[in-house]
Amino acid sequence: MVAAVAANCVIGVDLGGTKMLAAAVDESLGVHHRAQRPSGDLPLAELLDRLAELVEEAAAEAPGEVLGVGFGIPAIINRPEGIVAASPHLPLEGVRFQALMAERLDRPVVIDNDGNCTMLAEWRHGVARGASDALMITVGTGIGGGIVANGEMVRGSTGGGAEIGHMVIDIDGPPCRCPGHGHYEWYASGRAIGRAGEDAAERNPDSALGQAQAAGQEITGALVTEFAHDGDEDSIAAIALVGERLGLGMVSLVNIFNPEVIAIGGGAVAAGDLLLGPAREVVETQALPSMRSAVRIVPAEFGADAGLIGAATLAFEELPPK
Amino acid sequence: MVAAVAANCVIGVDLGGTKMLAAAVDESLGVHHRAQRPSGDLPLAELLDRLAELVEEAAAEAPGEVLGVGFGIPAIINRPEGIVAASPHLPLEGVRFQALMAERLDRPVVIDNDGNCTMLAEWRHGVARGASDALMITVGTGIGGGIVANGEMVRGSTGGGAEIGHMVIDIDGPPCRCPGHGHYEWYASGRAIGRAGEDAAERNPDSALGQAQAAGQEITGALVTEFAHDGDEDSIAAIALVGERLGLGMVSLVNIFNPEVIAIGGGAVAAGDLLLGPAREVVETQALPSMRSAVRIVPAEFGADAGLIGAATLAFEELPPK
Repeated sequence: MVAAVAANCVIGVDLGGTKMLAAAVDESLGVHHRAQRPSGDLPLAELLDRLAELVEEAAAEAPGEVLGVGFGIPAIINRPEGIVAASPHLPLEGVRFQALMAERLDRPVVIDNDGNCTMLAEWRHGVARGASDALMITVGTGIGGGIVANGEMVRGSTGGGAEIGHMVIDIDGPPCRCPGHGHYEWYASGRAIGRAGEDAAERNPDSALGQAQAAGQEITGALVTEFAHDGDEDSIAAIALVGERLGLGMVSLVNIFNPEVIAIGGGAVAAGDLLLGPAREVVETQALPSMRSAVRIVPAEFGADAGLIGAATLAFEELPPK
Repeated sequence: MVAAVAANCVIGVDLGGTKMLAAAVDESLGVHHRAQRPSGDLPLAELLDRLAELVEEAAAEAPGEVLGVGFGIPAIINRPEGIVAASPHLPLEGVRFQALMAERLDRPVVIDNDGNCTMLAEWRHGVARGASDALMITVGTGIGGGIVANGEMVRGSTGGGAEIGHMVIDIDGPPCRCPGHGHYEWYASGRAIGRAGEDAAERNPDSALGQAQAAGQEITGALVTEFAHDGDEDSIAAIALVGERLGLGMVSLVNIFNPEVIAIGGGAVAAGDLLLGPAREVVETQALPSMRSAVRIVPAEFGADAGLIGAATLAFEELPPK
């Protein structure tokens, strides 16, 4: 019997607004022992303590030496300084996150925005593998994203870029949760699907959506998607409307970046071609012809593990080997 | 007396929709003997012949050996193939421009989009010098542009990218001259200033703009700018409206690229801070705070020579030295 050789590992952490997920990931992308905790409503010190516990739990089960830890964070990161520049979901604004976690864990730490981590996962190992120019659009509660151009991640001068959810797509649109207004994520996120479903419920009180609303159910993107998969026409139309707007933002991105592939991730991917079909149709008819013919628009390969696999990939790439 | 050493030169060509401009440019960026011809309304063979004449005229006056020729073209270029993919202004669509001109001239030739050439000029030698992340917005009849990220020009997978004039900024906006609608250049170009001036003329027939229109003058961006510099309030307001919309597109670009500098060129720069003041104000209040504080929004350094200097810079960088 030959003894298995212990593989080098890193810990990938996907820190979300409501939960934190970590796992040991080996160089072959094997994911070992996922650990999970709630992340919401904690003061800073407790949040960092809980993260440290989570990482050590994953590290204890790692099948080889742990080289370091990568964190994907739903925040704008100043990478040159290792600081969280803006954090709408967690009390991390202004926090020297990289240094604090490295100290607590006594391990090397790298950090990045969660959208960038997801892009990195899809670019190195998923549907954007081998592309010199690619985009990730994460359609969840909001819209996140990541960008590859000239075979490199594009993060901008202070590492805060790729906030594609905060493109203006409507000059007279409503305020965003950021200081802007008329932004992409208002029109094309999972929440937008819920809102389109609510509008349909109010227009047609006798419809499935109307009856659900009357019965006190919240009309969420997930519910509309469920109804649409069951064949409800109003729900299908609501998703198609949001898909068209998702496509309008893609028109901008295709004309700017001329990418080979746009990977679509996040919870709203559950709507499948009900969402992506109308989006592709808008790109096909409205993007500049020589560029639309160069791009594939496809669901991301990694689902719920995308964030932690991306964070782990970042750690493998940026931390020195032992 | 010491003989001057002949400097290596290239020929930079700025091919526009109405005129073509060429000059010999030396390595110190000295511009020698500008030659110019009309470019509009020519069949392809005559257009190429005239370009060849123009280049040879400039080459004849060059103070040193001519290493090759760079062309900036108002078109979408497929750089890997050296083909013009789309050309709204000149009969170049599908033309193997690079190979044809190299053959006609018997000299090495490089080609790029005109917006990219302008970006290159500003990045290597102008207001974006030294930046790792920068943008060029050329506000003329339409809007052109160029992008630098991670210290490299961003042209996309087939070289057609950086078409920032064709970002969607209004989901219900009017058709563009491309297949899309609601695009940035409709709202924020020199032509948009003219349209805003026309609207003002119709609202106030007794105003300076109204009287000019009644007298048969065409209300162009240039005329509105002239009136605004003379203190006409309607003209100032028309430029401010377009400046705000110019700013809304910059909000998208700042949130996506997190650039250090945005250089503004093109004819509309004549409006100066009447245009850029309102644009900066929108960025200052609506872009993501950690990114807006990182960016300078400044007029481009090169004026009418930007295109040919950029084309010459491209030739120096991409052609092999002799």
